[in-house]
Amino acid sequence: MITANQKKFVKSLAQKKFRTEYNCFVVEGEKLVHELIDSDFEIEVIYALKDWIEENQPEKAEEVSAKELASISLLKTPNQVLAVVKQKKEPLPNTINSFSIVLDKIQDPGNLGTIIRTADWFGIKTIICSDDSVDVYNPKVIQATMGSLFRVNVVYTNLTDFFKEYNSLSVYGAMLDGENVYQKTLNKKGSVLLMGNESKGISESLLPFITDKILIPKIGHAESLNVASATAILCAEFTK
Amino acid sequence: MITANQKKFVKSLAQKKFRTEYNCFVVEGEKLVHELIDSDFEIEVIYALKDWIEENQPEKAEEVSAKELASISLLKTPNQVLAVVKQKKEPLPNTINSFSIVLDKIQDPGNLGTIIRTADWFGIKTIICSDDSVDVYNPKVIQATMGSLFRVNVVYTNLTDFFKEYNSLSVYGAMLDGENVYQKTLNKKGSVLLMGNESKGISESLLPFITDKILIPKIGHAESLNVASATAILCAEFTK
Repeated sequence: MITANQKKFVKSLAQKKFRTEYNCFVVEGEKLVHELIDSDFEIEVIYALKDWIEENQPEKAEEVSAKELASISLLKTPNQVLAVVKQKKEPLPNTINSFSIVLDKIQDPGNLGTIIRTADWFGIKTIICSDDSVDVYNPKVIQATMGSLFRVNVVYTNLTDFFKEYNSLSVYGAMLDGENVYQKTLNKKGSVLLMGNESKGISESLLPFITDKILIPKIGHAESLNVASATAILCAEFTK
Repeated sequence: MITANQKKFVKSLAQKKFRTEYNCFVVEGEKLVHELIDSDFEIEVIYALKDWIEENQPEKAEEVSAKELASISLLKTPNQVLAVVKQKKEPLPNTINSFSIVLDKIQDPGNLGTIIRTADWFGIKTIICSDDSVDVYNPKVIQATMGSLFRVNVVYTNLTDFFKEYNSLSVYGAMLDGENVYQKTLNKKGSVLLMGNESKGISESLLPFITDKILIPKIGHAESLNVASATAILCAEFTK
């Protein structure tokens, strides 16, 4: 059973304004909720079908009908269970010893989610996003991470301040006028890969912080690679 | 000026059923339409704003108001111009001498579009899709290709028949139980990379045709990579 107020609350979390106000977000579907339960995120409430609750016996579960679940779901095809979760404000790490990703103004939620999933595959623990990047708690980001969100720290900050403070990092900027990445010796410790906005690339104001411009050599004719695909190729190189 | 019938026709092309019936599809936005005009695709009609027509002087253009464009656009933010284009039914190449991509039951339009864009970047000319893959003329696929659709041949076929006929190919199947791709010698001529469905991987029935199972080594914890990201990493390896 779900009240009209609960319903209104859950549905409001589709919007960043309300996610920020309530400091919550929504996780949907069996796979993601399983990964959520295994994580250190704090669950507020789980709305689930009877069978799912009986099988999984989670804490904080409230039984709902399929119709009720559909009424609060943000998915086209609601899937058994929906959780409301407290947001975590990840702090910047004290030092960056290992390889991390920095994202400048990434706007597409699918791209951010896919990059988080890629980071998780390659054991990259931290992604630092510019304050004006898409919200990691956007439902489309969550879905695209396929649960990796619960294992990768995503931090939002002012990138200019970040680069000024962490000024001993090797900063590899992916750029169309970069050097062939396969011909570079890549520093895999104390380094970051900086990826820019989908259409505009890396902000002018961040260029002075780049220590190495890199490029995935082009053989064909596309103007650019999708940012999540380029990030995947470069993460593969850096973690080899 | 656009008539009610024209409007109905263009809007119907959002659905595969009508795209197939009329053998047409829609291309939107300045960048994509420019790439379309440079391609060998046959344009039926271009609906565009006055300024765009004056600047570009294309053939077969009909002037529409911003309001009319919005009424036929499949995008959230209509962008100056929309073209209706004839579909091309690409035949299978006679022989596959160079490296190609084979997609088994790819369902997400963003993934297919991104893979086409990646293929174009790496100079891969042909993508062979199973008959039940997402339609390449789906508007979301078109948008995600960023114009690369006009430079890559995307062929639909029965993959079992395909592998039986092209039986001398090296078939590299991306699989979670594959061998480390970095430790394999990759045959880059007369070979294909076979990528499976987003959630189910490569169909059981295609496994006998795989000559080499390959894997991008995992360091972290994600269950899998996004299929477009994995394809990007593997295409980078094959074209190095």
